[in-house]
Amino acid sequence: MNTIKKASFLGPDHQLSKPIKVGILGGGQLARMLAIKGHELGLEVHILSEKATDPAAQVVKHFHAGNPNSAKDLYAFFQAVDLVTFESEFYSGDLLADISRETKTPVHPRPQTMSLLQDRLTQKQSLLDHQIPTADFIEIYTEKDLALAAKEFKNKFVLKKRRGGYDGNGTFVFKNEKDIQSFLKKNEIIANEYIAEEFIPFKQECAVMMAQNSQHELVNFPLVKTQQTEHRCDWVIGPVKHPKFNQLVLDLAVYLDSIHYTGVIAFELFDTGKKLLVNEIAPRVHNSAHYSLDAMNVDQFTMHWMAILNFNFFEPKSISKAFAMTNLIGESNKEVTLNKNITGKLHWYGKHENRPGRKMGHINYVGNNAQSILKIALSERKSFKNLGPK
Amino acid sequence: MNTIKKASFLGPDHQLSKPIKVGILGGGQLARMLAIKGHELGLEVHILSEKATDPAAQVVKHFHAGNPNSAKDLYAFFQAVDLVTFESEFYSGDLLADISRETKTPVHPRPQTMSLLQDRLTQKQSLLDHQIPTADFIEIYTEKDLALAAKEFKNKFVLKKRRGGYDGNGTFVFKNEKDIQSFLKKNEIIANEYIAEEFIPFKQECAVMMAQNSQHELVNFPLVKTQQTEHRCDWVIGPVKHPKFNQLVLDLAVYLDSIHYTGVIAFELFDTGKKLLVNEIAPRVHNSAHYSLDAMNVDQFTMHWMAILNFNFFEPKSISKAFAMTNLIGESNKEVTLNKNITGKLHWYGKHENRPGRKMGHINYVGNNAQSILKIALSERKSFKNLGPK
Repeated sequence: MNTIKKASFLGPDHQLSKPIKVGILGGGQLARMLAIKGHELGLEVHILSEKATDPAAQVVKHFHAGNPNSAKDLYAFFQAVDLVTFESEFYSGDLLADISRETKTPVHPRPQTMSLLQDRLTQKQSLLDHQIPTADFIEIYTEKDLALAAKEFKNKFVLKKRRGGYDGNGTFVFKNEKDIQSFLKKNEIIANEYIAEEFIPFKQECAVMMAQNSQHELVNFPLVKTQQTEHRCDWVIGPVKHPKFNQLVLDLAVYLDSIHYTGVIAFELFDTGKKLLVNEIAPRVHNSAHYSLDAMNVDQFTMHWMAILNFNFFEPKSISKAFAMTNLIGESNKEVTLNKNITGKLHWYGKHENRPGRKMGHINYVGNNAQSILKIALSERKSFKNLGPK
Repeated sequence: MNTIKKASFLGPDHQLSKPIKVGILGGGQLARMLAIKGHELGLEVHILSEKATDPAAQVVKHFHAGNPNSAKDLYAFFQAVDLVTFESEFYSGDLLADISRETKTPVHPRPQTMSLLQDRLTQKQSLLDHQIPTADFIEIYTEKDLALAAKEFKNKFVLKKRRGGYDGNGTFVFKNEKDIQSFLKKNEIIANEYIAEEFIPFKQECAVMMAQNSQHELVNFPLVKTQQTEHRCDWVIGPVKHPKFNQLVLDLAVYLDSIHYTGVIAFELFDTGKKLLVNEIAPRVHNSAHYSLDAMNVDQFTMHWMAILNFNFFEPKSISKAFAMTNLIGESNKEVTLNKNITGKLHWYGKHENRPGRKMGHINYVGNNAQSILKIALSERKSFKNLGPK
């Protein structure tokens, strides 16, 4: 699948003395880290987000106050830059495609890919079309469909909102008929809003980050284990071994090639022991690959720029035997206190307010044994006041 | 020397929800990389430099147009931040000390250290006081002193300007009496301007980066070989072994402790085979340690922030067996073309104009053998148009 095609966005070369102007939709920590790594490559980074205090807005010269869902704001922003990318897939793909066409400013990953993957139904269908292992699912339009799903999955299934879900929001787990009834008491089934998926009794959750440029060069990062606490990423360790990993990467490579994907893309996985099933796809940089900032020869943010600016790829390699990443998540509205006696590399997002459930930063550790460094990492996190999970 | 003393700048802890405001004097690539790594730590980075197109000014929200030698500009800048540092030691230490006292905004490394080290004579004297191996020298006030130096060093010596020298500027190498006479025809000896140093026939030039925080914790980076071309850093490889390296590091540790140094500090060295002599000291981040951005568990810029914000230290470790760094230096005024087919990590400084001798960027490589990766690095550099050295 690594055949070179003539599809380079900026041509094979670029005059460096005129900085490449790149625009990022969104102002959160993912946009912030994209901006920082863009600076390293000499890119002129522009941010479109609502508030000047947004994490990404704080680290750039070119902040554009605006809403990435407003046609007017997008139009002005697209005219100011050479290329647009995003930190969230939940914008309007159609609107982005229209404005990209009008302004002749490309968006990568492409807006049609965003539309395909932001809707859980079309995402799952496309996985099915490419024979990528994933949980069985049923389209839900009415209460009757829900009853069908209950029968098919023996009352054990997950109802998910097709659009806009994150960190467990929009996900409802049913274990028995009572769960379903109590859901229906509080919620109404609206057509095109939900999808029902078989409940997968997994051993652990995993993730893999991949990347493709316009020349259809493809690379993958290592398999990692991801631990969720209250539906949020708590910590990540790696690299992890799995008998099905190589096969899955090859399948995903064919998949990415066929949808003409450009950029990095995260696959969240269920490890059932025997199988690795794709659970969710995030067509962007992702929390599960933050370890790459300190544990790889190339990090996911740099890789994303390399992919969408059509740099030739080199293979991402681990630079230590093992790595661990702990998220620092707000546990109250009180100020957090930084313990300066940590042995990992701190990444702090500069958010002005601590809030319960808010991702405030993360710490990366490298070493010889994942379990040992995770133990140190979790113990060090305990020393941060009002941050967790504890 | 690692005894913990009560001398913490911001106290042992810091309320992270109020971003720490740090100011950098200067707007070049060193300030730019300090800013980028400051962003990663969640710092609010302010830049004081003259032009909005300066490399560092392009990557921050808080750019203050001004001259780091102007008392008025410095005063306003010091009032806007919690802590000041610098990318060049050639500002007025006295002025910085005055304004720091008035505004109660600390400067790290301390202004008195800047004054001590920016003058080559007091720098050399302080090395001598601490029995650090360095080339013999003679103070030069008149032509008579020059004649004395010629006699003492048998006509083989180096005349250096005491202040403001960089990249070979302000350095005059004499091999015989004719060289001295031709220098005197064009130049006048002014008191306090020069120092004469014994010419050292070195095997190779080396460098080491060290760091100290206010708790007097000290760490060192590995010994590296530095290659100069036309008095400018061309490439760096490492780690390099030398029988005298450990002893030198211990001597330098005592030296840094005794001058109460805070921050990172670069020592440029002559390797004569048997000895390692300190040639020059740069009390700041330094080109010879750019490899650390991709080849270490902590880079020199992050280390500098950790040192001056009084984080507890962890030991800098190489994450690969070998590393190489090639500078990308302008060879003409023509635009440079980026070859996207490189196998190292590109760091590009976003300068708007290419100029002969101008440092435009660098590339870092990691691998198993320094000579092999250097060979690849130098070959890849050839593909960049109008950049070298070729």
